[in-house]
Amino acid sequence: MDETLTPTSPLRLLINGANGRMGQALQRLAAEQPERFVVIGAVTRKVGQRVIDGVPQFASAELAGAPECDVVIDFSLPEAFDAVLAHCVEHGRALVSGTTGLSESQRVALDAAGARIPVLWASNFSLGVAVLADLVERAARSLPGWDVDIVEQHHVRKLDAPSGTALTLGDAAGQGGAVPRYASLRAGDIVGEHTVQFATFGERIELTHRATNRDIFARGALHAAAWLANRPPARYRIGDLLG
Amino acid sequence: MDETLTPTSPLRLLINGANGRMGQALQRLAAEQPERFVVIGAVTRKVGQRVIDGVPQFASAELAGAPECDVVIDFSLPEAFDAVLAHCVEHGRALVSGTTGLSESQRVALDAAGARIPVLWASNFSLGVAVLADLVERAARSLPGWDVDIVEQHHVRKLDAPSGTALTLGDAAGQGGAVPRYASLRAGDIVGEHTVQFATFGERIELTHRATNRDIFARGALHAAAWLANRPPARYRIGDLLG
Amino acid sequence: MDETLTPTSPLRLLINGANGRMGQALQRLAAEQPERFVVIGAVTRKVGQRVIDGVPQFASAELAGAPECDVVIDFSLPEAFDAVLAHCVEHGRALVSGTTGLSESQRVALDAAGARIPVLWASNFSLGVAVLADLVERAARSLPGWDVDIVEQHHVRKLDAPSGTALTLGDAAGQGGAVPRYASLRAGDIVGEHTVQFATFGERIELTHRATNRDIFARGALHAAAWLANRPPARYRIGDLLG
Amino acid sequence: MDETLTPTSPLRLLINGANGRMGQALQRLAAEQPERFVVIGAVTRKVGQRVIDGVPQFASAELAGAPECDVVIDFSLPEAFDAVLAHCVEHGRALVSGTTGLSESQRVALDAAGARIPVLWASNFSLGVAVLADLVERAARSLPGWDVDIVEQHHVRKLDAPSGTALTLGDAAGQGGAVPRYASLRAGDIVGEHTVQFATFGERIELTHRATNRDIFARGALHAAAWLANRPPARYRIGDLLG
Repeated sequence: MDETLTPTSPLRLLINGANGRMGQALQRLAAEQPERFVVIGAVTRKVGQRVIDGVPQFASAELAGAPECDVVIDFSLPEAFDAVLAHCVEHGRALVSGTTGLSESQRVALDAAGARIPVLWASNFSLGVAVLADLVERAARSLPGWDVDIVEQHHVRKLDAPSGTALTLGDAAGQGGAVPRYASLRAGDIVGEHTVQFATFGERIELTHRATNRDIFARGALHAAAWLANRPPARYRIGDLLG
Repeated sequence: MDETLTPTSPLRLLINGANGRMGQALQRLAAEQPERFVVIGAVTRKVGQRVIDGVPQFASAELAGAPECDVVIDFSLPEAFDAVLAHCVEHGRALVSGTTGLSESQRVALDAAGARIPVLWASNFSLGVAVLADLVERAARSLPGWDVDIVEQHHVRKLDAPSGTALTLGDAAGQGGAVPRYASLRAGDIVGEHTVQFATFGERIELTHRATNRDIFARGALHAAAWLANRPPARYRIGDLLG
Repeated sequence: MDETLTPTSPLRLLINGANGRMGQALQRLAAEQPERFVVIGAVTRKVGQRVIDGVPQFASAELAGAPECDVVIDFSLPEAFDAVLAHCVEHGRALVSGTTGLSESQRVALDAAGARIPVLWASNFSLGVAVLADLVERAARSLPGWDVDIVEQHHVRKLDAPSGTALTLGDAAGQGGAVPRYASLRAGDIVGEHTVQFATFGERIELTHRATNRDIFARGALHAAAWLANRPPARYRIGDLLG
Repeated sequence: MDETLTPTSPLRLLINGANGRMGQALQRLAAEQPERFVVIGAVTRKVGQRVIDGVPQFASAELAGAPECDVVIDFSLPEAFDAVLAHCVEHGRALVSGTTGLSESQRVALDAAGARIPVLWASNFSLGVAVLADLVERAARSLPGWDVDIVEQHHVRKLDAPSGTALTLGDAAGQGGAVPRYASLRAGDIVGEHTVQFATFGERIELTHRATNRDIFARGALHAAAWLANRPPARYRIGDLLG
C-alpha cells in the first residue's frame, strides 16, 4: 500500500514509550525510511536510556516542550496515557495508540478525543489481522448457523488467554451474529497464530493469520500514522485503513 | 439460512439430468424436505432408468409436456442445455444450472436469458466456496503487493487441474488486483480442498475451504432454487445469495 | 497391505454386535471382498433385526451354537463382552475387539486371554491412527524438552473430550517422555481429526491425521482380523500390525 | 538434548567459512554458550572482514597454522572444501560440514574420510527436519500404496525448487518404498515449511515442519559438533544424532 503514498516531506513523528520494545522498533524502522518518516522526539519516563542516535529525547514530564509533529505514536503504559492524550488534544496532534490496559474512563476520554483530533487505537497493528477481522465478520454474516471456533497459539511466556487479538476476532464474529468458542495453545516461541473456523455439515472454512516477525506490528503502526496524518478529527479503528 | 424461508407450499422443481450423480442427489435431498420441495418431474435422456418412486419421468424430447413448476434445476450435458433453456424462457420458469462445458454461444444465450427469466449458473454450488470467493476478492483488494498462491487438492480420478473452483477463486483474487499462482495435488479420495494464501514480510493469511461430503453441492443448488424462485428476471451469480 | 495376503480360502468371520454401526459396516465391507472374507454368523442381542441376506443370525444367548470360524470380531457392549471372550477362549478362536467402556476386571480378563488365544483390542482401528501413534512416540523420544500439544476435532454430537484417540496419542507421547496438553473442538460433522504438535525455539513439527469416512474403522478391523488369523496366542496391540 | 552433555571444558571449534551467514551465526551462538563452546579460529578467504572480537582470524591459505581444535565446522564453498577436508584428515579432526554444491569426487572423498575421522555432512541441520525425515521413512514403510505428496514453501528469493530439504524428505519416503510428488511455493519471507502428506481412501496423514528462525540451523550444527566430538571415525548422517 506504500506506493500510494507520495509525501512531499517526511512525516514528523513523536514517539511516546520510546524505550519499550515497540518504541525501539518504531525508531529503527522509521530510520530505515527517511524519505517517509522522521522521529522528531522520543519520549520516555526517564531520559538517557537506549538513546537512538540523532533522536531528541524528552522525559514524559517535559512533553509540553516537544517540538511540533504530524502524528504522536504511543505504545506506553496506562499511567503515561492521560498526559499524551491531553497533549495531543491541546496541540491538535493526530494520535496513534496501542497502549493496552486502559481503564474505562481512559477509554471514554479516548473516544471523546475523536471530536477534536484524529485518533486511532488498536490492540494489534498488523495489516493481516485487520484484514482477517474484516473477513471474519463478513463470513459470520454469510454463514448463519455454522459452528465457529477460534484457536490461537503464542509463545510460552504469554500469560493471558485467549489473546487480545483472539477476542477482537471473536468480536468480529459476534458482529456477524456468531457465538465463537476459544482454544488457546502456548508453545515454543510462536509470535502469534489465529485460526477462525466455520464448520457445518459436509464443509468447513478456516481463516488463519500467522505472524512470524514482530516488526509487522511496528510497521503497521507507522502505516497507520501515515494514513491518519491528514484525516479530519474522529475516533478511527484499524478496519478503517482497509478502505 | 433455511429459517428465513417460510413457504406456504413446497417449491415445485423440475430436474433436468435426473439420472446423473447430482440429479439423483437432488431428488433424494428434496424428498427429505417435503415441506419445502416437491419434484414434479425428472427429465432424462431416456425414461425408465433409476426411477425414483412417485416422481413423474419425462424424456428430454417430451420436455414441452412437463407440468408447471417454480424452478427448473439443470445438471445435464451441453447437448441437453439448449432445449431446457428454451423451455424456461418460453414458459417463464426460473432456471438454476450447473451444467459445465457450455460453448461460448451457449454462455451468451444464458446471459441473454436473464432479460426474460431469473437464471443462475455456477460451477460450484457449495455455500462455503461462494463465501470463500467473496472473502478472497476482499482480501486481495486489502492486501496489494502480497504474494497470492492457490493450492487445491482432489481425489486421484480428477483429471483437470487446476480445478474449476480454483480458477473461480483465482478470478476473485484477480478482481481484487492479485495475480495468483496455482498448485494442484491429486491424492486419495479427497472431495475437494482449496487454500488461498496471501503472504508478505513477517505475516501470512490462509483462507481454506474443505468439502467432505458431496451432498453440499446438491443442497446448495436446492438453496439456490428457493432463493431464485421469486426474483425478478436477471442473470444472477452464486455470490448474489450471500446477501 | 492387502497384496501380502493370499489366502487360499476366505477368512471365516463371526461378528458380535452385528446390528451396531460398526457391525453393519463390517458385514457390508466383507461382502464386497468375497474372495477374502465370509461372514459365517451375525450375533445380536435379539435375532431378526436388520438381517443381511445370507448371513446366519444368532442371538447372544445362542453363541455356543455358532459354527466354526477363523476370527471373531466384536464391536458390542461391555455387558455382551464376557460371553464372547469366554466363547473364544473355550473354542480357541482369534478375537478382534473394539468394544469400549470395559471394566477393569474385563480388561484383566482380556489380557489374560492372550495366554490362550490371539487377541487384539484397540480403541481405533484406522491404519492411519496406528501409524500416527507410532510416529508420535518416536518423535517425543527424539525431541526432549519440546512443547507437546494435542488438538482434536469431532462432530458436535461427540460428548467425551478429549477423544479416546487423543488420549491414545497422548500415551504414545508419554511413552516417549513428553507431557502433552489437550484441546478439543466440536464442530459440524467432522469424523475425526487429531494433530500432535511439537514446538521449540524457531521450529515446529505438526503430525496430523484426518479421517473423512467412517468405513476406515471397519476396514481396519477386517485387516486386523486377517493379520491375527494365524498368529500364536498373545495379547496384541494395533501397533503390532505395522511390522 | 543439551542437558545430556556435561563437558568438563568447552568444545574447541574451528569455523571454516566464518564470514558467511552460517559462519557468523555459529560464532554468535557459540559466544552465547561459553561454558560449552569456544571458537579458537575463524577461517575466511581473506582475513579482516567482519571480525568477531577475540576470535583469531585465519586465511584459508594459512589453515595449516590454525591451533588445535576438537571439531571443525565448515559452511563454505566447494572450492574451499578440499583444503579443509585434507586438513581434518591429516590432523585427525572431527568435521561437521554443511557446504552444498559438492562435486561427485568431493562426495567420494568425504565418504572415504570416514575411515580416518568422524565426519558428518547434511543439507539441513535443524533437529526438526532430521526427525521429520526419520518419521517420513517410517510412515512410508507402514503405509504402502498411499499417495505421497511433498509441499514446500520458502521465501521468494529462493530460486531452486524443490528445496534440498524436500528432496531429502523425498529420499526418506523413497527408502520406505513410496514415490512422492513435489509442489513448491515461493511467498513472502518464509524461512522454510515442508509438508509430507500420505493419503488413501477415507483418511490422511500430514507431517509438517515449520522453521521460523534461521538460528535453528546454526544451533543444530553446534549440537552436531558436540555429538561428533568423541565419536570413532565414520561417515555419520544427521539421523544418527536421533539416537
